[in-house]
Amino acid sequence: MVVENNVAKDVKIAYIGGGSQGWAWGLMSDLAKVDDMTGSVALYDIDIEAARKNETIGNRIKDGNSGWKYNVCETIGEALTGADFVVISILPGTIEEFSSDIHTAEKYGIYQSVADSTGPGGIIRALRTVPMFEEFALAIKEYCPNAWVINYTNPMTICINTLYRVFPEIKAFGCCHEVFGTQSLLMDALEEECGIKAEKRSDMKVNVIGVNHFTWLTSANYKNIDMFPVYRRFAEKYRETGRDENNGDIEINKAFKIFQKVKFDLFLRYGWIAAAGDRHLAEFCPGDWYLQTPEMVEEKWKFGLTTIENRRKMLSDRVERGERLLSGEEEFEIKVTGEEGIDQMRAICGLTTLCTNVNLPNYGQIPNLPLGTVVETNAVFSAGNVRPVFAGAVPENILPLISRVSAEQEMVTTAALNRDLDMAFNAFAADPLVRLSLDDARKLFDEMVANTSKYLGMYNI
Amino acid sequence: MVVENNVAKDVKIAYIGGGSQGWAWGLMSDLAKVDDMTGSVALYDIDIEAARKNETIGNRIKDGNSGWKYNVCETIGEALTGADFVVISILPGTIEEFSSDIHTAEKYGIYQSVADSTGPGGIIRALRTVPMFEEFALAIKEYCPNAWVINYTNPMTICINTLYRVFPEIKAFGCCHEVFGTQSLLMDALEEECGIKAEKRSDMKVNVIGVNHFTWLTSANYKNIDMFPVYRRFAEKYRETGRDENNGDIEINKAFKIFQKVKFDLFLRYGWIAAAGDRHLAEFCPGDWYLQTPEMVEEKWKFGLTTIENRRKMLSDRVERGERLLSGEEEFEIKVTGEEGIDQMRAICGLTTLCTNVNLPNYGQIPNLPLGTVVETNAVFSAGNVRPVFAGAVPENILPLISRVSAEQEMVTTAALNRDLDMAFNAFAADPLVRLSLDDARKLFDEMVANTSKYLGMYNI
Amino acid sequence: MVVENNVAKDVKIAYIGGGSQGWAWGLMSDLAKVDDMTGSVALYDIDIEAARKNETIGNRIKDGNSGWKYNVCETIGEALTGADFVVISILPGTIEEFSSDIHTAEKYGIYQSVADSTGPGGIIRALRTVPMFEEFALAIKEYCPNAWVINYTNPMTICINTLYRVFPEIKAFGCCHEVFGTQSLLMDALEEECGIKAEKRSDMKVNVIGVNHFTWLTSANYKNIDMFPVYRRFAEKYRETGRDENNGDIEINKAFKIFQKVKFDLFLRYGWIAAAGDRHLAEFCPGDWYLQTPEMVEEKWKFGLTTIENRRKMLSDRVERGERLLSGEEEFEIKVTGEEGIDQMRAICGLTTLCTNVNLPNYGQIPNLPLGTVVETNAVFSAGNVRPVFAGAVPENILPLISRVSAEQEMVTTAALNRDLDMAFNAFAADPLVRLSLDDARKLFDEMVANTSKYLGMYNI
Amino acid sequence: MVVENNVAKDVKIAYIGGGSQGWAWGLMSDLAKVDDMTGSVALYDIDIEAARKNETIGNRIKDGNSGWKYNVCETIGEALTGADFVVISILPGTIEEFSSDIHTAEKYGIYQSVADSTGPGGIIRALRTVPMFEEFALAIKEYCPNAWVINYTNPMTICINTLYRVFPEIKAFGCCHEVFGTQSLLMDALEEECGIKAEKRSDMKVNVIGVNHFTWLTSANYKNIDMFPVYRRFAEKYRETGRDENNGDIEINKAFKIFQKVKFDLFLRYGWIAAAGDRHLAEFCPGDWYLQTPEMVEEKWKFGLTTIENRRKMLSDRVERGERLLSGEEEFEIKVTGEEGIDQMRAICGLTTLCTNVNLPNYGQIPNLPLGTVVETNAVFSAGNVRPVFAGAVPENILPLISRVSAEQEMVTTAALNRDLDMAFNAFAADPLVRLSLDDARKLFDEMVANTSKYLGMYNI
Repeated sequence: MVVENNVAKDVKIAYIGGGSQGWAWGLMSDLAKVDDMTGSVALYDIDIEAARKNETIGNRIKDGNSGWKYNVCETIGEALTGADFVVISILPGTIEEFSSDIHTAEKYGIYQSVADSTGPGGIIRALRTVPMFEEFALAIKEYCPNAWVINYTNPMTICINTLYRVFPEIKAFGCCHEVFGTQSLLMDALEEECGIKAEKRSDMKVNVIGVNHFTWLTSANYKNIDMFPVYRRFAEKYRETGRDENNGDIEINKAFKIFQKVKFDLFLRYGWIAAAGDRHLAEFCPGDWYLQTPEMVEEKWKFGLTTIENRRKMLSDRVERGERLLSGEEEFEIKVTGEEGIDQMRAICGLTTLCTNVNLPNYGQIPNLPLGTVVETNAVFSAGNVRPVFAGAVPENILPLISRVSAEQEMVTTAALNRDLDMAFNAFAADPLVRLSLDDARKLFDEMVANTSKYLGMYNI
Repeated sequence: MVVENNVAKDVKIAYIGGGSQGWAWGLMSDLAKVDDMTGSVALYDIDIEAARKNETIGNRIKDGNSGWKYNVCETIGEALTGADFVVISILPGTIEEFSSDIHTAEKYGIYQSVADSTGPGGIIRALRTVPMFEEFALAIKEYCPNAWVINYTNPMTICINTLYRVFPEIKAFGCCHEVFGTQSLLMDALEEECGIKAEKRSDMKVNVIGVNHFTWLTSANYKNIDMFPVYRRFAEKYRETGRDENNGDIEINKAFKIFQKVKFDLFLRYGWIAAAGDRHLAEFCPGDWYLQTPEMVEEKWKFGLTTIENRRKMLSDRVERGERLLSGEEEFEIKVTGEEGIDQMRAICGLTTLCTNVNLPNYGQIPNLPLGTVVETNAVFSAGNVRPVFAGAVPENILPLISRVSAEQEMVTTAALNRDLDMAFNAFAADPLVRLSLDDARKLFDEMVANTSKYLGMYNI
Repeated sequence: MVVENNVAKDVKIAYIGGGSQGWAWGLMSDLAKVDDMTGSVALYDIDIEAARKNETIGNRIKDGNSGWKYNVCETIGEALTGADFVVISILPGTIEEFSSDIHTAEKYGIYQSVADSTGPGGIIRALRTVPMFEEFALAIKEYCPNAWVINYTNPMTICINTLYRVFPEIKAFGCCHEVFGTQSLLMDALEEECGIKAEKRSDMKVNVIGVNHFTWLTSANYKNIDMFPVYRRFAEKYRETGRDENNGDIEINKAFKIFQKVKFDLFLRYGWIAAAGDRHLAEFCPGDWYLQTPEMVEEKWKFGLTTIENRRKMLSDRVERGERLLSGEEEFEIKVTGEEGIDQMRAICGLTTLCTNVNLPNYGQIPNLPLGTVVETNAVFSAGNVRPVFAGAVPENILPLISRVSAEQEMVTTAALNRDLDMAFNAFAADPLVRLSLDDARKLFDEMVANTSKYLGMYNI
Repeated sequence: MVVENNVAKDVKIAYIGGGSQGWAWGLMSDLAKVDDMTGSVALYDIDIEAARKNETIGNRIKDGNSGWKYNVCETIGEALTGADFVVISILPGTIEEFSSDIHTAEKYGIYQSVADSTGPGGIIRALRTVPMFEEFALAIKEYCPNAWVINYTNPMTICINTLYRVFPEIKAFGCCHEVFGTQSLLMDALEEECGIKAEKRSDMKVNVIGVNHFTWLTSANYKNIDMFPVYRRFAEKYRETGRDENNGDIEINKAFKIFQKVKFDLFLRYGWIAAAGDRHLAEFCPGDWYLQTPEMVEEKWKFGLTTIENRRKMLSDRVERGERLLSGEEEFEIKVTGEEGIDQMRAICGLTTLCTNVNLPNYGQIPNLPLGTVVETNAVFSAGNVRPVFAGAVPENILPLISRVSAEQEMVTTAALNRDLDMAFNAFAADPLVRLSLDDARKLFDEMVANTSKYLGMYNI
């Protein structure tokens, strides 16, 4: 890569999971829109056919500024060699494993809204994800130790943790857009309560603290306005009814619907702004609070529970769209995703400076969580540097909630790295959603492991 | 106080809760046995009659070496003035409040084995204890800021926390004998597995870590023997049956029976020695593990649940015994308690050096818990000094369990100091034993507060 | 203050030291150039006549965008009431005290190049400055506890330290342009060594670490270029000759001349970029390195030693210019200073986001210096927030140099707050520039205190 | 090793430097006096003949209780295999190197009183010691990774540092008797000022903080007596004259004489008790304070400067004594040394518990020095454990003195491990005793390196 006249040229991005249907197209779209960065994207995927399709789709993009080239690599080493950036966005396992992750625990009265980060489903997913990330870390160490690594895969905390545990000098960080949604909600509050329409989400300046998908804001300011009293009025107004703003056709989007009622409840009880989607927040809280029964979820908290049917439908939609894009039947529409990955790359190339929230080991940015624990806070991105911003201590009243799940995720990482299912079970049994006797918890755990054993051979089960 | 010829003379102990039936007699007994310390004990109690009875009982003691004098003080200031040591051992509230603490939550399926440290009962008890300890701290600051303060009252962690929050320069520590019981169990293991009979409990050298009543050992050595493999064999042997060693007549002692099955289960699952009685340990774990139903407690884990009937019986027994002691009908028997309070005082006077476990703020002795949090580790007692020993990090696999309850206790302290029942409720709702919807949790909380409102006037309820 | 349409209106700045000749005019100039911020500046100065002159000068400014109003306040309370920002830029004492600070130690072979931050002169200056800053902190606490406080006064570290020690909740930071000069030097290196002309100083992205005037860069990047190898070639080239770039007429500017030879020597010996002017850097190093004799300074290191004659001349020049500005004889020229104070205010108002170096207490941004110590690192300025960026540990090979001076400055602050001249002397005797026996050091200290006793009455000398 | 009936049997000690004349005999003496520990001592020395002599001397000891066996090992591996304890007490280099260490710097006006820990001599000594300790650490890792390692060699801090850097899991600590001398001085003060004769040094309970040979006491208590006011009276009394108590015939012991005047001066200036011999303390302070000229040392501070003549004399005396012991001409006298090594071993075997001062990495026992830095504080020795005691922060007024030398010693360790003479020079040039221009400092450094080049081949000089 070189930067000349404020344009970064010959940027090489290696994309692990490059056959993805969804994220890959988003990246292509964002890259097509960038006017000060060009280069190539090496697509690597265990499903090489999917990667080849994306290669064709990507290279066909005409609009936008970019002469970005897409090329499939058959080995991860080939993809990584010479990379300036590595993007990791994979699906650990197939929809069959995901089906077990989501639904198996239901027979024990455990309901999960997402099942990708925590809870029974998140832990089992981690067990198959960690060994994959170990391989990625080792390959990065071998082929491109100085590359910047951007992860989008869940369970985010555990993925980032694995990368740093295996290769401590790695320059990796994890990105997630959940905080962005909360910034947008704050924009709504600002408009409704103060009659002020903010121009951009990023003008809503927030101090982020916590772990991925269980992030909180301890300050939020728009220009000279402290958003806390504004958001309080807003939250009190919608406490009972919730807000039905972005759900579209509820019947169709049922599994993803959100009325922000969990977010409002947490704010009004704790005084700090919970900053992820309700469906994520609910999974990190004690299971009886927001996920006691499907009826409670539906009627009281008004958010959707992921179903595997819905996921299958989404997947087949994407597959079909992929075929249309491949055949040219559907034109690739360049639509900025709102993700910040490209701006982060630009900042690292020195083309801008950016302060945004990412997942990194704790170097002291949160002084009352253990050093080394992966946390989500703001960080400054500038030429050749990503440095966390001091976020302050986790407020005392949410520390019991955060410290336990943060410590749980460290423990799951270690368990998986050690191929220690008993240790993983101990994390599982203590998870906030698992309100079971030890015997029942073990039965459930064993069943979920068995269901996904195709991906768990390294545990010698 | 002066020390001459290795004898500490004119030692002045102020005893807050000096009317106690039980602890006070134990202290009298231990003092009567000491041969290198003499002085006086100022008894202060809100029940001055009880204190007067203890004054008579104490001054009547003939045996032993001591010329200890007991005198009742009508005000706390009088008791504290000139004190070298302050002992705090009070009952916060009466047995009526305790009755509510223990049994109210049962209708929601929440069973507590002790209800004095954590869980619904422990939290409500804390709400009435913290304001009392605030007063003690202020009085100590005023009347004897340089005295050493020894607390025996539960909830231990929160009591010590309150003392330090209100008067940060206080020289206070909290003592608890639960670890001693585990050392004795290790002696049993040593004898059974190795055929070695240890002479004294204190020869079982242990590294203590955690919070009071949820303490763990990360090393245990007897002479050159690493006790971990020894204890493993022992725990595996008794995993199913448990051990029925010190329960006496089970029918009579039902409420206190312990078969060590919780301790063995925790050790075999985590690899670290849980070091408190099963009845305490169970309350700090997720409620479905060891306290799901009374039947599970009785049949599977084999420990006793405290009942108020039992407590009433114990209380009336003590009252009766007090009357007999007072009238001289029963002779006061000098019997060493096994508590270490007297030896701690002797060490502070420079008469010995002692390394034992106590509760203190975290100055870094446990690096992965927040600084300032009250923790239990070893400390060295020597002339004029009590200094914590570096205990090391909480092992990763028990950190999720410990960090949440530790953070909960900090939060309860703040809530009580701020007279903030909503904050207290948030701690309550997230407690490991409370597996309830938010609505039910609040109903229970409000009921328990109402039941004990006589002691909660300062909360403006 | 309100922000409307991306313009901050009615911003109220309180200027302590508002009669200043120099800084005040710079601020006026910068404010006149800002197009998205308007308001008023309250000028407070113990020399009220000087403040009145600046009021006239400021209100006469026509060019630029601003309708900034300047008004003199007779009391500090009046000036601070309602302030959004407080700027502190004072001269502690008069040129007579400064004369003693600079020259008294010369008879003991101690030469100072600036004498405002450290060394004998810096310490004595601190003794008279701390009591002033105590008053400022108390006044801010009383009149505008939520205002943001920007200090430009030296000794910077000790001034910021005093503000936080007296009023721990203060929102204060300290600004210094010394790092900027190093960024400019890096731009020169980039141009000479790589043929690339950087557009702006702020594109030279640096990680700043250390204490004010003894700051170091542990990374420096321009776009995709690592500046360390570039700067190495540059430093080696100029190691012997130094660079005579910005000195102008050496005879006239003799006292301020700099050839960067200290900076190059430190870089080539340590591998980290010393990032302050040579005249400052030299004073923080052992006295025999760069300040052994005036001849060594002149011939070998080629930087200027401040002389009081020069300072008197500068002062009288400024006074004369002040009279010309006041009378209208000279037109006020609006010339941007390059200081960042205005942009920092704009960022705090939410009009931009800025990452730059400032002086703040150590919250963990430098993990191997004590918590609470005032340090200089980058921080992010955004709406309502100034948060330090994690700078990393001080590199091991410069830690001996930095830790001692950092600890010295903490000690001087405490000594001054406690009015403890003996403690101040102990700092003085251990200062890197003071290579004297204890007797001689004390004689010198006492003489310097006596010389400036007019400002040291509170020490009961 | 086994412990039976409170006796540790078959204890295996490996002695690196086992040919030593002095320390070895002390160890033999102490072992002969122990009645609850027996076993064997494997003597390893690069001077195998010296080791053989000690083998003969050791095995000839009749008195005492012990059946300790001494046997020479020809390789370090043989000596270490099966060791329970490793004692390291070597002389790094010969008296010729030591001669250069002590005297070379004198021509630049730098005088050293000991030259084994710090200053020019200590740094050069470290350069040849570190590679030896690297070998020891690697051998221990290979042959006896679980052994406890006790170091007596200087430079202590750097030796311990090297062991932990090379083999982080090592169970090593460093012992020094300098604090003991201060405890004895406190006993003298107690007797003179209070008329109380303390029985044992160890009854003087002290809190130790700092780095080896520059240790300080922040509390000192004898029974209920705070020694600080007592020591103040004592120090004030002897401030001018010093105390000539244990110097014997000053003419003969000239090089070692001590009048405690440095110790008193430091206490009276700082309020904390400097706790090492004056000759060590002086070397860690700025060179002009106590070591400006030999005349000042002699007349004002009244301590001795080590001379190589004296050392040669001591050495030849020891050699002669060795011959007499070997031949049987002189009977081996069993005389307890007052060192605590044996009691430390006994405590680790579980035969006692001991709280004493040792050198260990900083795990947080001193919160305002960097983690990992080797420091000297108290630690608790008990069965299978050596754990540091929380010592508290270094007091603010001595932190500038301690932080710089502590950081210097870390830096020298790294320089030596990296074989980086330039980095070593940078430590040298910034040492408190080196008040030289950079050119002169380098000339001196190069000369001292050249003088000792026989031991510095690995630096590729």
